[in-house]
Amino acid sequence: MADVKSDIEIARAAKKKPIVEIGAKLGIPSEHLIPYGHDKAKIDAAFIAAQQDRKNGRLILVTAINPTPAGEGKTTTTVGLGDGLNRIGRQAITCIREASLGPCFGVKGGATGGGYAQVVPMEDMNLHFTGDFHAITSAHNLLSALIDNHIYWGNEQNIDVRRIAWRRVMDMNDRALRHIVGSLGGVANGYPRETGFDITVASEVMAILCLSVDLKDLEKRLGNIIIGYRRDKSPVFARDIKADGAMTVLLKDAMQPNLVQTLENNPAFVHGGPFANIAHGCNSVVATTTALKLADYVVTEAGFGADLGAEKFFDIKCRKAGLKPDVAVIVATVRAMKMNGGVKKDDLGRENIEAVNKGCANLGRHVQNVKKFGVPVVVAINHFTSDTDAEIQAVKDYVATLGAEAVLCKHWAEGSAGIEELAHKVVELAESGHAQFSPLYPDDMPLFEKIDTIAREIYHASEITADKSVRDQLHAWEAQGYGHLPVCMAKTQYSFSTDPNLRGAPSGHVVPVREVRLSAGAGFVVVITGEIMTMPGLPRSPSSERIRLNEQGHIEGLF
Amino acid sequence: MADVKSDIEIARAAKKKPIVEIGAKLGIPSEHLIPYGHDKAKIDAAFIAAQQDRKNGRLILVTAINPTPAGEGKTTTTVGLGDGLNRIGRQAITCIREASLGPCFGVKGGATGGGYAQVVPMEDMNLHFTGDFHAITSAHNLLSALIDNHIYWGNEQNIDVRRIAWRRVMDMNDRALRHIVGSLGGVANGYPRETGFDITVASEVMAILCLSVDLKDLEKRLGNIIIGYRRDKSPVFARDIKADGAMTVLLKDAMQPNLVQTLENNPAFVHGGPFANIAHGCNSVVATTTALKLADYVVTEAGFGADLGAEKFFDIKCRKAGLKPDVAVIVATVRAMKMNGGVKKDDLGRENIEAVNKGCANLGRHVQNVKKFGVPVVVAINHFTSDTDAEIQAVKDYVATLGAEAVLCKHWAEGSAGIEELAHKVVELAESGHAQFSPLYPDDMPLFEKIDTIAREIYHASEITADKSVRDQLHAWEAQGYGHLPVCMAKTQYSFSTDPNLRGAPSGHVVPVREVRLSAGAGFVVVITGEIMTMPGLPRSPSSERIRLNEQGHIEGLF
Repeated sequence: MADVKSDIEIARAAKKKPIVEIGAKLGIPSEHLIPYGHDKAKIDAAFIAAQQDRKNGRLILVTAINPTPAGEGKTTTTVGLGDGLNRIGRQAITCIREASLGPCFGVKGGATGGGYAQVVPMEDMNLHFTGDFHAITSAHNLLSALIDNHIYWGNEQNIDVRRIAWRRVMDMNDRALRHIVGSLGGVANGYPRETGFDITVASEVMAILCLSVDLKDLEKRLGNIIIGYRRDKSPVFARDIKADGAMTVLLKDAMQPNLVQTLENNPAFVHGGPFANIAHGCNSVVATTTALKLADYVVTEAGFGADLGAEKFFDIKCRKAGLKPDVAVIVATVRAMKMNGGVKKDDLGRENIEAVNKGCANLGRHVQNVKKFGVPVVVAINHFTSDTDAEIQAVKDYVATLGAEAVLCKHWAEGSAGIEELAHKVVELAESGHAQFSPLYPDDMPLFEKIDTIAREIYHASEITADKSVRDQLHAWEAQGYGHLPVCMAKTQYSFSTDPNLRGAPSGHVVPVREVRLSAGAGFVVVITGEIMTMPGLPRSPSSERIRLNEQGHIEGLF
Repeated sequence: MADVKSDIEIARAAKKKPIVEIGAKLGIPSEHLIPYGHDKAKIDAAFIAAQQDRKNGRLILVTAINPTPAGEGKTTTTVGLGDGLNRIGRQAITCIREASLGPCFGVKGGATGGGYAQVVPMEDMNLHFTGDFHAITSAHNLLSALIDNHIYWGNEQNIDVRRIAWRRVMDMNDRALRHIVGSLGGVANGYPRETGFDITVASEVMAILCLSVDLKDLEKRLGNIIIGYRRDKSPVFARDIKADGAMTVLLKDAMQPNLVQTLENNPAFVHGGPFANIAHGCNSVVATTTALKLADYVVTEAGFGADLGAEKFFDIKCRKAGLKPDVAVIVATVRAMKMNGGVKKDDLGRENIEAVNKGCANLGRHVQNVKKFGVPVVVAINHFTSDTDAEIQAVKDYVATLGAEAVLCKHWAEGSAGIEELAHKVVELAESGHAQFSPLYPDDMPLFEKIDTIAREIYHASEITADKSVRDQLHAWEAQGYGHLPVCMAKTQYSFSTDPNLRGAPSGHVVPVREVRLSAGAGFVVVITGEIMTMPGLPRSPSSERIRLNEQGHIEGLF
């Protein structure tokens, strides 16, 4: 193990090709690539618009079991599978989310894969990248400023200042901003009121950018944002205070997908990154649909485990964008199976077939859930050096009993050579034409029933509870014409239940709906079933203390 | 006048050259240009470091009379003169400041010149540009978050939470954030305290970035920021909470100057943009010193009128960076002379020689002041179509009495062809070798005497007043080793006095020093003589209401 290189060492040793060469592989002329340095580029909107009549490639979703502290390697597998497909002769593009800046200064950086399955340049991607998140921050906060300015100058729209729903955002982990009183200091500064900041990835603007098909759609959705309510409870929209045009201008460049490359010089689109709890947790629709026009295979991922990520990918992103996924890959690890089987983190190094077998229940539930969407499933066992052959075989045997296959993948250590088998299996499933994708529930189902359907079918809950106020709110939105929207579940990612400590495959639990929120611009109803943190804090010894430039000008401590 | 094109029409019709061609003119190989699109690039730090042994070109400062609502056209003249020098065969680079995003959504955009003397791409430059200001916002707010986080986890440094000097910033005009109470909401969110936001250009990080010579210097200065004080009044520095390394990493790319082009395809460096009141108001030292290595002539500007802008350029930027300006151009207009002579804005269209003569006193004072720094002066009369020959002659005659020359400039209407005479005059003065630059006061003068010197010599005040607490504070800083710093005057830009309504050349007035602040990282003591607004608000009908993308995808309303 002594000669194992760190992710950053591997990334720095990468032989990157000029980004115009990567674009050329996809048939993108250099004048349609907007460079950001020599290794990043945006694909311009005109080129994207011109591809609309082309045939789509196959869409592969990479999802996972419920995350455990053992780590599953979902992004690593997404990147590895993209490289694997290219290796076996399929033109493939990997589509993943952009990293949020704030958390890099807290505990961890790195949302760009790992080992020999990474996307580069990793430093840039964990810092400002191409400025998309900064643009989202600006657009969000322009709307915030316009709201208080509107009230300051006479409140022509009669916004009830107690019922302003729009907060501010910052791409920073800053708990001091969670809850503030603003507009203090006298007459020149406005009307004091309670408000606060969320982290930028939690902004509805982020969700909107990721679901919009073009700038026109973006502007319409931004205009549809509900910023608050009047005393008669009627909603006030962003367009009512004429914010949509300027917000769109701020987001014009951010709407264009970013092209980078894997360590093996294959194309990757890295674009957008909405929260996976109060939003849908997938990269942008523009990136995915553009990739489908340019490649035989598009490999993308969804946030958290399949109970949240895949469900939202299918029921929100695919439904809204008309996407038809061909295969779903569920990532699991032997270590995570053992944790689900009751083993503590410190004991993961010891072989424990019994725990593996027990923990497989979690994986099994996800396999069966994903099949409900009509999408063929294959399990990827992301290999760790401590895994024993018997443990791996136990997972394979278990998955076989579900009528599916589990494939051992060594892309972390070996790059695309280690994931050829999975690539072949994915191609076999995709080209079999077995996929018959359909969302879990129809558009016209009442909102509460949609929640109920997800809770029963996906979480295996026995019932959902909600106060009358919650039910009344859902009915009110249905009356206002929002009943056709999908629901976006905000639940702990660690369990099928709302109790993060309940691993495995619990059933018969109760899902309490604490609060519902309408993201009218993004186009979904957020259903909150627990404590949802939308502005993280920093730990006692934040990683920022160790981040600096060394004598060679390299960044230390970011990863 | 019907066929006069707007600035944005002229800018859109520009025949831009690829930025690599502009770089090639300066001898910058394309691999040392970091492209941001096809028309913007950063010059990489390695290339800059390699030029240090080259001879410097000549440095020309463009400054102005006190600004009036009539408009003087200082940036327009800076850009025009750069083009004019290139036209007459001198390799010249224009160095100006970056535009702040926030104000573009309030009243005005456009800090990129005007008419046929503009820098392009103007839309980008008024929006996110190359992300420098976003990086500064992030670095500033990371430090803010680390301060509250330090207190949250036990306040090991014993920061007196009543004496935290570091606020937060946002690049937005948002009066609601001027004064807030943060950390509300209970134990998980920290210790409630009063704080607020400034606009990003007012951040000390901005001033630091603009005064640093390289990344090492930047990190040292960031570490020197005073974030607050302990109960014993000893300062707590950013380095005490280990913020300097991560802030430097966030600013790594922002430190590299941006290369763009004028309408005439001449090179322009647009980099940094500190406030001209609480900071020094000049583009970055890195941009200016790099430009001096690459060109025969470097034309740069300073904020506000010469009483603030030129004084700070000389006493702060030139002193600290070892720059030796060769010529100063003072921009004036006939209209502004009339306003200084007592004419109202609506009456500016009528010839009024008497008012011109009277208003010239303001110009004369600036000419004499600038000469005190040992720099030869020429006056540029920025031509307006309403100017009469007699009015222009009156200005010229007046300036001649001061032993200087005033040159009529028509660059706004004619581009470089309209400013040839000024270019020749500047070359004549620069190559005469008459410049003997020296700052107004020596480093070792006591701080209060420095303020007194500026007030008497530049403002022609009869005395300065200050409470004992202010004087004590200055003495305390001298005792702590900050006595050698220059002072940075925050005074109204509209008058030599502290009364914005006192036009012309008042003398014998009193300058009250209300407050002093130590920018220990930037390296100056800020002296506040009036109401200084560090977070602007938006007007009743902000320009954002009219900003949008039109059917052609062009931005409307931004300018």
